[in-house]
Amino acid sequence: MGWQKTFTLSQRSKGCHLVTDEVYAHITPGIKDVKVGMLFLFIQHTSAALTINENCDRDMDMALDNIVPESLNWMHTDEGPDVSHTKTSLIGATISIPITDGHLNLGTWQGIYLTEFRHAAHSRRVVATVL
Amino acid sequence: MGWQKTFTLSQRSKGCHLVTDEVYAHITPGIKDVKVGMLFLFIQHTSAALTINENCDRDMDMALDNIVPESLNWMHTDEGPDVSHTKTSLIGATISIPITDGHLNLGTWQGIYLTEFRHAAHSRRVVATVL
Amino acid sequence: MGWQKTFTLSQRSKGCHLVTDEVYAHITPGIKDVKVGMLFLFIQHTSAALTINENCDRDMDMALDNIVPESLNWMHTDEGPDVSHTKTSLIGATISIPITDGHLNLGTWQGIYLTEFRHAAHSRRVVATVL
Repeated sequence: MGWQKTFTLSQRSKGCHLVTDEVYAHITPGIKDVKVGMLFLFIQHTSAALTINENCDRDMDMALDNIVPESLNWMHTDEGPDVSHTKTSLIGATISIPITDGHLNLGTWQGIYLTEFRHAAHSRRVVATVL
Repeated sequence: MGWQKTFTLSQRSKGCHLVTDEVYAHITPGIKDVKVGMLFLFIQHTSAALTINENCDRDMDMALDNIVPESLNWMHTDEGPDVSHTKTSLIGATISIPITDGHLNLGTWQGIYLTEFRHAAHSRRVVATVL
Repeated sequence: MGWQKTFTLSQRSKGCHLVTDEVYAHITPGIKDVKVGMLFLFIQHTSAALTINENCDRDMDMALDNIVPESLNWMHTDEGPDVSHTKTSLIGATISIPITDGHLNLGTWQGIYLTEFRHAAHSRRVVATVL
């Protein structure tokens, strides 16, 4: 039987933001007694994503702007060129992290990042599941 | 004890295709009694991928053609430039979706998409696992 | 109750390397009696990633160099331009593979690849979890 909780990350504007501590505050009750398991974090949005990385604050945002430029021939432009959706599929909606003895088993340099693709600040809902 | 089923998605040619309903038809028996869990969809191919997104039909396909251009100096060209394999690794072979009270806990605007990278229509096998 | 093991992949320099057999040697004890389940492989580094693909040795490495060029305006350049971190987030830190009757249920042409982004050879730690 798994554990699940939906929570909201604080509002942030475009960029790549370290959210490890904010995530831990929400999920500690679900992982603290798990000897061996997995945490799945699923973001319920299509213009923001989650990733595991190091130091991605400015470089990742700049690199993704270069990889998915606004200058392409976009069809959906109601909210500006639809670069956010493509970035979301490149980074992905789910991250999966091993749990060992009640803790996330991240490497020394790894952290959990929210990549926000909209310029305006948004709150983002995340469904955390522990199996 | 998990639930697992291998099924085949209908033939589709190059592009990004919404398959949420087709997937639901196959997996409903496996998720309907699950209160808290995860669905993993794994595609058994290297020239197609699965992703969670919104409105990705034309823009995503165009953007991926731009990100991974056929004009690069490809070595494997037996079936044309090997752009499909790189696109597959960028998007990924597996999507992981939370299950809550017997339903996929997708966000309001999220759907399951098949990104087919071959020009000719192909049937694609998917292994669905519920834990 | 899951099974978990941390192991180290042999040193490899920059490129995309097939590691299916090396992974199998480490994880066979954990999957051989599993009828239905999932294997999660999580790499504890931010300048290497894991992916499922076919024939990605030279083409993938070349394509990723093109997608994330060193010529961008990188801020973090202590160890050279910070291309590795962006590549890591594009490919991802975790791969998730279905287990069926004691075997990984990969497609005919699929293999497990380590994409090493550093030029110098590195050993890489992987946390394998079976649920």
